[in-house]
Amino acid sequence: MRTDRIENLRKRMDEAQIDCVVLFSNSDIRYFCDVDIEGALVITRDECRLFVSSLYFQKAEEELEENTVLSKSLDDIIEYLKTNKLKSVGFDFAKTTVKQLRAFDMFDIVDFSNQTLLLRAIKEREEINKIKRAAFAARNAMLKVYPTIKAGITEKELADELVYQLRKNGAEKEAFDTIVASGPNAAYPHHRPTDRRIQEGEFVVIDFGAHIDGYNSDTTYTFLIGKKTDELKELFNAVFYAQLFATEMIAPGRTTAKQIDERVRKELAKYNLDKYFIHSTGHGVGLDVHEFPFINPTNDMIIQPNMIFTIEPGIYIPNKLGIRLEHMVLTHENDTEVLAFAPFIEAM
Amino acid sequence: MRTDRIENLRKRMDEAQIDCVVLFSNSDIRYFCDVDIEGALVITRDECRLFVSSLYFQKAEEELEENTVLSKSLDDIIEYLKTNKLKSVGFDFAKTTVKQLRAFDMFDIVDFSNQTLLLRAIKEREEINKIKRAAFAARNAMLKVYPTIKAGITEKELADELVYQLRKNGAEKEAFDTIVASGPNAAYPHHRPTDRRIQEGEFVVIDFGAHIDGYNSDTTYTFLIGKKTDELKELFNAVFYAQLFATEMIAPGRTTAKQIDERVRKELAKYNLDKYFIHSTGHGVGLDVHEFPFINPTNDMIIQPNMIFTIEPGIYIPNKLGIRLEHMVLTHENDTEVLAFAPFIEAM
Repeated sequence: MRTDRIENLRKRMDEAQIDCVVLFSNSDIRYFCDVDIEGALVITRDECRLFVSSLYFQKAEEELEENTVLSKSLDDIIEYLKTNKLKSVGFDFAKTTVKQLRAFDMFDIVDFSNQTLLLRAIKEREEINKIKRAAFAARNAMLKVYPTIKAGITEKELADELVYQLRKNGAEKEAFDTIVASGPNAAYPHHRPTDRRIQEGEFVVIDFGAHIDGYNSDTTYTFLIGKKTDELKELFNAVFYAQLFATEMIAPGRTTAKQIDERVRKELAKYNLDKYFIHSTGHGVGLDVHEFPFINPTNDMIIQPNMIFTIEPGIYIPNKLGIRLEHMVLTHENDTEVLAFAPFIEAM
Repeated sequence: MRTDRIENLRKRMDEAQIDCVVLFSNSDIRYFCDVDIEGALVITRDECRLFVSSLYFQKAEEELEENTVLSKSLDDIIEYLKTNKLKSVGFDFAKTTVKQLRAFDMFDIVDFSNQTLLLRAIKEREEINKIKRAAFAARNAMLKVYPTIKAGITEKELADELVYQLRKNGAEKEAFDTIVASGPNAAYPHHRPTDRRIQEGEFVVIDFGAHIDGYNSDTTYTFLIGKKTDELKELFNAVFYAQLFATEMIAPGRTTAKQIDERVRKELAKYNLDKYFIHSTGHGVGLDVHEFPFINPTNDMIIQPNMIFTIEPGIYIPNKLGIRLEHMVLTHENDTEVLAFAPFIEAM
């Protein structure tokens, strides 16, 4: 159990004036208990108690640290709260189903949304190292697959090899479903790999990540296959510079998330390409692939040191092409670092 | 859009006396619209309308059938309901977050839980064929990996090869995280593959599935590596017979889910092994890996023709070993069929 993390949450519980929180998210359970177990975690002022089903009981008993108490049945939560006279109970409404919440109708239910995400947005050294390991596993997998990215190979074949190499290079699994999108298919940001063969003169967008020890990576490369025309190079460079300038302008402690998003849009607008940028600029990466901070046009959050998030401008021209470049940025006290940077396969 | 499926849902809407339902589950959207798109689906008495973000708009526009209306923003739902004077709105409480529901506070919120799961529990011919394809892809992948299941290989190496073969044999991806658990690790039902090397005289539990075209498979094999002692054979056979007899006793239209579960426990009890069976007997498989019908000690649901579910007895002896055998059963009018049966690697 991470005592300091739990103490930080208790400060937020004090501010919200609640007796306890009930967390159902696997990522939250991992964050506070350091175990990969499904269940419900109850954190009170003086106890941290994990409720699991029989399926996970043995594992929990062996892996949980001493200062976490274990309960054998998920049904026992209500009784536990009553016995301990815990009245006001906080929940993350975005991570709790209506069904889960209804079981707590007899208590004072308090909206405690985003509180764990806010804590998790600032990464500890140990977390940074895990995310770096994931980023390097992904980079190394891409290096293995790189020579095969040629006209003739199908999207699915490429994705299959990449997933294999991810695992061979240390990933437990994909962080999310690998995207390989070629030619007109790349105009769909969330395209699923098909049997379409990659052709000369096309862009291929590859978006993938590694999952290691609970943590994730998330990067996207776009390759231009065969002859590089000036027109295609200009499109690529617009995205490349949008990513570069948005990354360079970050001053931890001062820059807001929406300023980064704005910088991307401003750069793409120079080429009249901003209308083809149909998603937000980025998102935090950690125990979840998408977490705080979200880099979008409305988020006022100030970027702090020790955050890790993606910067991923893209353009999507229907029936024609797509380009997306995504890297993960780690913020330091005064500057930023791109994780597992791979210039030789990104430059044009 | 699947008009007949939507009409079936509308009958249930009539019974519940609601004006519309709002569905957030990807599997439900796929079931009713035949697209692989994230969003929110609103089904009223005379319209079926999918609300998507800009990320999915182009894809939705191209793939949605004519009788589904598309709206470009998720924020438009409330306005749409108001404009159309839709007052009572049904939700599946197990698939809706508290945050999602709170946006609908001004409407009459009705508990419409499990209604799509009940429809989806009865598979159509087309769905059965997709699940069979997934089952055969998984079986074929296992056949490729089978010769390598020997002392010396690690759990992770086996899992990596199996996932690779799943994809090479037609799967888009794993249906869920592949489990390879050897020796004492097999005592954890949800073990994650480690670098532990498989040893002679051990059981290895391999639980995996293929995901194809939205549908899943889910099977578990247990192999005994090296010398088969009488003691280990007896343990294996107890599980094997529990699975066999529970499969054979099913009379579609008459047997309840809990009777199947009971049959498994009764068989294991003969060997005094029922105390080591720490989960339920099975679950439906389809667009979700776990769906209706759930085969557990409390479910009174009568098994109907054209259901597909797992039968997966297991025993888990802490610090010692684990055995689980899982196959998928398709029910016909009067009998049952085991999907992609592979006796040569299951028999002992």
